[in-house]
Amino acid sequence: MNDRLDPALAQDPNAPVRYERDARGVVTLTLNRPQAFNALSEAMLAALQAAVERVAADEGARVVVLAAEGKAFCAGHDLKEMRAEPSLDYYNRLFAQCGRFMMALQALPVPVIAQVQGIATAAGCQLVAMCDLAVSARDAKFAVSGVNLGLFCSTPSVALSRNLGRKAAFEMLVTGAFISADEAKAQGLVNRVVDAADVPAEVAKLVDSIVAKPRVAIAAGKGLFYRQLEVGMAAAYEDAARTMACNMMDPSALEGVQAFIDKRQPNW
Amino acid sequence: MNDRLDPALAQDPNAPVRYERDARGVVTLTLNRPQAFNALSEAMLAALQAAVERVAADEGARVVVLAAEGKAFCAGHDLKEMRAEPSLDYYNRLFAQCGRFMMALQALPVPVIAQVQGIATAAGCQLVAMCDLAVSARDAKFAVSGVNLGLFCSTPSVALSRNLGRKAAFEMLVTGAFISADEAKAQGLVNRVVDAADVPAEVAKLVDSIVAKPRVAIAAGKGLFYRQLEVGMAAAYEDAARTMACNMMDPSALEGVQAFIDKRQPNW
Amino acid sequence: MNDRLDPALAQDPNAPVRYERDARGVVTLTLNRPQAFNALSEAMLAALQAAVERVAADEGARVVVLAAEGKAFCAGHDLKEMRAEPSLDYYNRLFAQCGRFMMALQALPVPVIAQVQGIATAAGCQLVAMCDLAVSARDAKFAVSGVNLGLFCSTPSVALSRNLGRKAAFEMLVTGAFISADEAKAQGLVNRVVDAADVPAEVAKLVDSIVAKPRVAIAAGKGLFYRQLEVGMAAAYEDAARTMACNMMDPSALEGVQAFIDKRQPNW
Repeated sequence: MNDRLDPALAQDPNAPVRYERDARGVVTLTLNRPQAFNALSEAMLAALQAAVERVAADEGARVVVLAAEGKAFCAGHDLKEMRAEPSLDYYNRLFAQCGRFMMALQALPVPVIAQVQGIATAAGCQLVAMCDLAVSARDAKFAVSGVNLGLFCSTPSVALSRNLGRKAAFEMLVTGAFISADEAKAQGLVNRVVDAADVPAEVAKLVDSIVAKPRVAIAAGKGLFYRQLEVGMAAAYEDAARTMACNMMDPSALEGVQAFIDKRQPNW
Repeated sequence: MNDRLDPALAQDPNAPVRYERDARGVVTLTLNRPQAFNALSEAMLAALQAAVERVAADEGARVVVLAAEGKAFCAGHDLKEMRAEPSLDYYNRLFAQCGRFMMALQALPVPVIAQVQGIATAAGCQLVAMCDLAVSARDAKFAVSGVNLGLFCSTPSVALSRNLGRKAAFEMLVTGAFISADEAKAQGLVNRVVDAADVPAEVAKLVDSIVAKPRVAIAAGKGLFYRQLEVGMAAAYEDAARTMACNMMDPSALEGVQAFIDKRQPNW
Repeated sequence: MNDRLDPALAQDPNAPVRYERDARGVVTLTLNRPQAFNALSEAMLAALQAAVERVAADEGARVVVLAAEGKAFCAGHDLKEMRAEPSLDYYNRLFAQCGRFMMALQALPVPVIAQVQGIATAAGCQLVAMCDLAVSARDAKFAVSGVNLGLFCSTPSVALSRNLGRKAAFEMLVTGAFISADEAKAQGLVNRVVDAADVPAEVAKLVDSIVAKPRVAIAAGKGLFYRQLEVGMAAAYEDAARTMACNMMDPSALEGVQAFIDKRQPNW
């Protein structure tokens, strides 16, 4: 059984995460607990981790669309499940599991696009922040609302504060209030805001743009992008120069540059 | 004498910083040298340091409002005092004292809200940048104007560059020019801009939002927020996961989450 | 031959970079390969490196304007030259050379202002991002378009991600698409956008503002500004306090502060 030949086999309509892959390597992961506002239960997190690992192992994958079934994108952790096991050890494991998935998502060699409708709250808002790109419906809303229940959104703050300015991020974290999609765009949490009906088409534009480029360039560049953000500028340039030199030696780049010189389309 | 029972006793109308605290734990610190545009003299800095330490020791404190008497919020260091003692040793001590206060303000376990009117210049602008949140009158203005006197606002640049993008921050530092409150909001220096008459009411909304939440959640979350900004993402997530697990084990969070599940108000 | 007495001697109309310096210490570097959209050939990079070193050695220099001849600001690396020598060793040296120049530009003790018209793409967009300030024509456009050829703009990403929010930067890098000057300003890549005909006058305003201040203050402040961005807040404040104390001991600052107290113009 090969996903690339028969993507239908990879789908289970009742799984917490639906996994679809087309012939171009476009993987759509759909959060599929609409009745629970796609809360990140342990089963959901495990399914997401497995899906990410599957993408990582798929050398033909080109881009991931992270979508959601139903009215909400994602309402964060599954609070009933969390409340049912009140032990420090359990919570440590749960938040570590969630962080591991979030890091694995960003570590994928292909871009990940959040396709957001309804609400994205707490770890659901974190999920949007951790994606490389995000397209939001105009009527979607974003909050890190744990503080309203006495649980400050500490793990979401890691992602949020790497998307927004610190005063805007702190205000969201301490008030727990919603911001609109337009505000989310102005602050840097999402890339594009369109009418709800137009979200899939807007995501498709980004997908088409990405799959039109060589995978190797995007994989090298994405990895470098996040690495270099964590070091000083001199070290960042050293890493970037090596990364770019390797990228240039790939046949796809040599052909792409030659095609540009020849004023023709690259023959990829 | 107990501040919590008799806040009036804590007030001295002639002190460089007025200290008021209500029964909810809302501490209002008021810069009180209006004739000197609330310049940060050594006495003012010492009073601010003492006030911050008092808040830090007050387990019932919930939020600090940093306000100012008179037309200006704060015009920075007291230049007459500075000029009167031209020695490297003195300046090193002065700027170290100021930095210690700024760091102590951010290290408080409760949020600090700047309530800004008039002008906030040089270390006065830094003070706004170091607060967790800021509400500004629409006609307020902001500058890091030391460069106009030949004294680049180096210590303010530490705070400013952690609020604004680097090109906008550099422009302010090198030109010394004022920006409007609306520009300050667009750049990330303040959270909200309202008509001068409405500033106290807007601050009160943030205060009310904060005191409605458990102190322990905000204290843990605020500390984590600033710690995780200074480390890489993997270390940030590890710290955040531990912090959030501890937060969840607090009775207030367990009750808050249970109340959410039960669709009732938490019994805090 | 002394540049300061006879700046005309320093000019060569056919050099890849024109070097002009006026009596005030305003250095204008003009990218001068308009027929090649000012592509950063090895000769161009060497000329830029030499120009930057010349500015660094000129104690009377006050500010650098980085301008460009022709329709384009800069189209990035010289692709013909690059493609002609397909070896990893060559690419490593080329990107290292480029990074060294970019770092040297930022390390100059005087501010550098990009004066942008037409297009700024790939390493040309990086160049804008590395300048301390940027003024753009309203019809200019910006892109990191290497990915369109299969060559992800990894080295430009170092500069770009230190100007823009990460989602906006990533979108530009992965789509290779242009953004407008207005969008570049909203995102933090440029400081000011004016009609093309007004760009020189707008640059002149910034230049006039800078040369009106003491060189020593700006040199100390600029160095500190970039150093403190790379360390934690406590270390940043320690460095800033020392830097500012030294700055204050300079006769220009002592005079500037005294003049402010005396309500007169400083006698610099």
